[in-house]
Amino acid sequence: MTLDTQRTDHDADNGFSLVPVLAALTRARADWRAAHHRATTPGGRELPAPETVERIVAGLRGALFPMRLGPSDLRQESEQLYVGHTLDVVLRDLVEQVVLELGGRPNDADPAQRAEIRGRAHALVRDFAQYLPTIRTQLDQDVLAAHGADPAARSVDEVLLCYPGLAAMIHHRIAHRLYRLGAPLIARMISEAAHRATGIDIHPGATIGAGFFIDHGTGVVIGETTVIGDGVRLFQAVTLGAKSFPTDALGRALKGHPRHPIVEDDVVIYAGATVLGRVTLGKGAVIGGNVWLTESVPPGAHVTQAGLTRGPRPGPGTD
Amino acid sequence: MTLDTQRTDHDADNGFSLVPVLAALTRARADWRAAHHRATTPGGRELPAPETVERIVAGLRGALFPMRLGPSDLRQESEQLYVGHTLDVVLRDLVEQVVLELGGRPNDADPAQRAEIRGRAHALVRDFAQYLPTIRTQLDQDVLAAHGADPAARSVDEVLLCYPGLAAMIHHRIAHRLYRLGAPLIARMISEAAHRATGIDIHPGATIGAGFFIDHGTGVVIGETTVIGDGVRLFQAVTLGAKSFPTDALGRALKGHPRHPIVEDDVVIYAGATVLGRVTLGKGAVIGGNVWLTESVPPGAHVTQAGLTRGPRPGPGTD
Amino acid sequence: MTLDTQRTDHDADNGFSLVPVLAALTRARADWRAAHHRATTPGGRELPAPETVERIVAGLRGALFPMRLGPSDLRQESEQLYVGHTLDVVLRDLVEQVVLELGGRPNDADPAQRAEIRGRAHALVRDFAQYLPTIRTQLDQDVLAAHGADPAARSVDEVLLCYPGLAAMIHHRIAHRLYRLGAPLIARMISEAAHRATGIDIHPGATIGAGFFIDHGTGVVIGETTVIGDGVRLFQAVTLGAKSFPTDALGRALKGHPRHPIVEDDVVIYAGATVLGRVTLGKGAVIGGNVWLTESVPPGAHVTQAGLTRGPRPGPGTD
Repeated sequence: MTLDTQRTDHDADNGFSLVPVLAALTRARADWRAAHHRATTPGGRELPAPETVERIVAGLRGALFPMRLGPSDLRQESEQLYVGHTLDVVLRDLVEQVVLELGGRPNDADPAQRAEIRGRAHALVRDFAQYLPTIRTQLDQDVLAAHGADPAARSVDEVLLCYPGLAAMIHHRIAHRLYRLGAPLIARMISEAAHRATGIDIHPGATIGAGFFIDHGTGVVIGETTVIGDGVRLFQAVTLGAKSFPTDALGRALKGHPRHPIVEDDVVIYAGATVLGRVTLGKGAVIGGNVWLTESVPPGAHVTQAGLTRGPRPGPGTD
Repeated sequence: MTLDTQRTDHDADNGFSLVPVLAALTRARADWRAAHHRATTPGGRELPAPETVERIVAGLRGALFPMRLGPSDLRQESEQLYVGHTLDVVLRDLVEQVVLELGGRPNDADPAQRAEIRGRAHALVRDFAQYLPTIRTQLDQDVLAAHGADPAARSVDEVLLCYPGLAAMIHHRIAHRLYRLGAPLIARMISEAAHRATGIDIHPGATIGAGFFIDHGTGVVIGETTVIGDGVRLFQAVTLGAKSFPTDALGRALKGHPRHPIVEDDVVIYAGATVLGRVTLGKGAVIGGNVWLTESVPPGAHVTQAGLTRGPRPGPGTD
Repeated sequence: MTLDTQRTDHDADNGFSLVPVLAALTRARADWRAAHHRATTPGGRELPAPETVERIVAGLRGALFPMRLGPSDLRQESEQLYVGHTLDVVLRDLVEQVVLELGGRPNDADPAQRAEIRGRAHALVRDFAQYLPTIRTQLDQDVLAAHGADPAARSVDEVLLCYPGLAAMIHHRIAHRLYRLGAPLIARMISEAAHRATGIDIHPGATIGAGFFIDHGTGVVIGETTVIGDGVRLFQAVTLGAKSFPTDALGRALKGHPRHPIVEDDVVIYAGATVLGRVTLGKGAVIGGNVWLTESVPPGAHVTQAGLTRGPRPGPGTD
């Protein structure tokens, strides 16, 4: 490789040499790999690629809602062909990404291990594909919930095409299924794609019931072990988080340990409210804007900044 | 179509069949269309496409600020040709999107109705085009307001090229005009494109005066019926929202009913403040950081977390 | 140019003329240029282009982490060639953008001035390139800090590939170096690219120590003169801002004047906390969620909404 031993064109043009920069970068990579026991043998990428995962999700969105989120020039008479072809392509791509997540590095694994990993990846993607019609039906319910709840929503199509809360839920319902089927890294890539686009950060592990609606959404955080019932409504900047006790004598929280809220059916949580820890918000409770809550709340309760009340006056929110 | 009756290549490769998945997805679409009285006859897309609308806005940005937001290789001697050509292309595209929003589905509408819808779309786009020079002048004032207000702003060009508040206002001033001219769905697509890019969520219905500046911006929400005067300044995470009374005996708020604040000239609202309902913030009022406000405030008042004061000490904010 | 004197095809098709629109846009541009003393002579772009700067950053990300953030099909045996070629291309592009920022307008500057600007741009990019291995090492420490701090993080690779806090720090460590070397406008374009993608707004002037971690991140604002030590951890919606006194008799804050917090080593700041002004948070201090703070805090202190306490119980946060 001439790059390490000769001046490059760059050097001639720019009056400085890249050679020491490249050598120092190579050392930094080698240090990292040595410290983290990484392969240093020749071979391809070892990890799923976020841009490939985003392309897969774009295809799934089109396949789920072909005439509204598919290609602009799609005609209804070609819908079936488009959906079939798109799924065929993106599910193959998904198999390859799952193989990478499951640890399949084609070049250095032994053939039996490679075949075993590939078989698990196929089974995972098959189970995922069979769940897609359920995801479509769930998302239809989310669209209806948003339309019913927001006085500014003009049509169900406006909700599907424009609302960031819906975009986040398309990603989440796909990501959650992959998380449960055993592909948590790909799932996290999908949820972070939604986070980038919407400012809504739902961990793929969160369990969310039917007819869920997030309005505006920027700054919403929903943690890994959150459980949300049916007909729940959130506004922007709501946090459903964990309590952290960084100086606790027992050390770090166990990974996967239930540490986020349980939100029962028909709860409404207004903008900026923060609910922390494994507390339960009872069915139909209303949590007012900017409330800070670390205790459970009974069904039907109305909580405002001034404290807990029962009665017809909920905390204010926004639409 | 062989897809429904034969095993596909996918099946052969992957050991499972897409056929039942496709059939279930088709049923889910049919159920939705039946429930929502949608066309099931052959034909093209019935709705504007967000990606086309984003391309139109990108063209309009370039046409409004050719030497700063246009193509990198543009030269000033070609500026006029670039602006003319770009507007010609994007306004034609806009006509087609407006036709879709107005309900024109080329294949199944009768010829007279098609011609009528197309005529209305042309008139709307003509009115919009004639307003573009006003939008440019308004945006120049927004740039100057940002540069004057922010100690970190080095030049007016830095503001136009970098500031998310300016990006949001380019989108808003375009979207608001389309909203008023009768294309609220396209307008909403434009405002959500800004929301995605900036975290600033301004409903296209909001009325905003001259020299408006949002600093940082992430988490700002400005509702549909908000009215903002001249020289107003907001920081990140400010909400100008509606009060919701979800359990109110009268039922849902009327669509379009005035329900968001009126903000008079020269008001400053610091980070995280929440102002809800049809209240008026009087001329020159200063609303401190994190204030929660559901009542009107007289001109010149300074409101902090501790309550209403009058005098020289405003609430703190950030730059 | 026929555009100004004849009806265009657009006119024929659309029933209205673009000519007056173009004339009015031309007047608006001329007014702006006259008011701001801009060149009106023929020539190319006078400013760096955000899309070019984003492409440069994408290349730098790949060159810093070739097997994880580089192209999906990269193989380890080609890594060295990929890094060398990528740096060669993007550093040349960076030289051109720096020339534009430094005021080099090829057509109208005199040859000696052009050569001087180009020489300064080369020197700046050379110094930047020599710092790249340090940036890689700093980012490796940021990855380890995130992995150690977050119970939901499954692997160091998940952090690098998925976490918005890491994406923001890749941008910031690049931007901060360019800011210090004298390219603050390009630096700001880079930090705003991160802001768009992550909702995390770090001014390129902020000084940030080793092993820094922002969890979730949406709504974080870190001001220009902030100084952050080693091992610091922030959650979403934390503001490290300035106090503004818009009605102060002395007028506007001086540009660049220290006005943001100093955060010492090992401080933790939970979600939604706001720290304003040139205050110091002492080593190991813990700032609870939603705290509003405008005064310094001693080392080891725990601050919650109820006020300052010392002891083992920090304010709650989220993961």
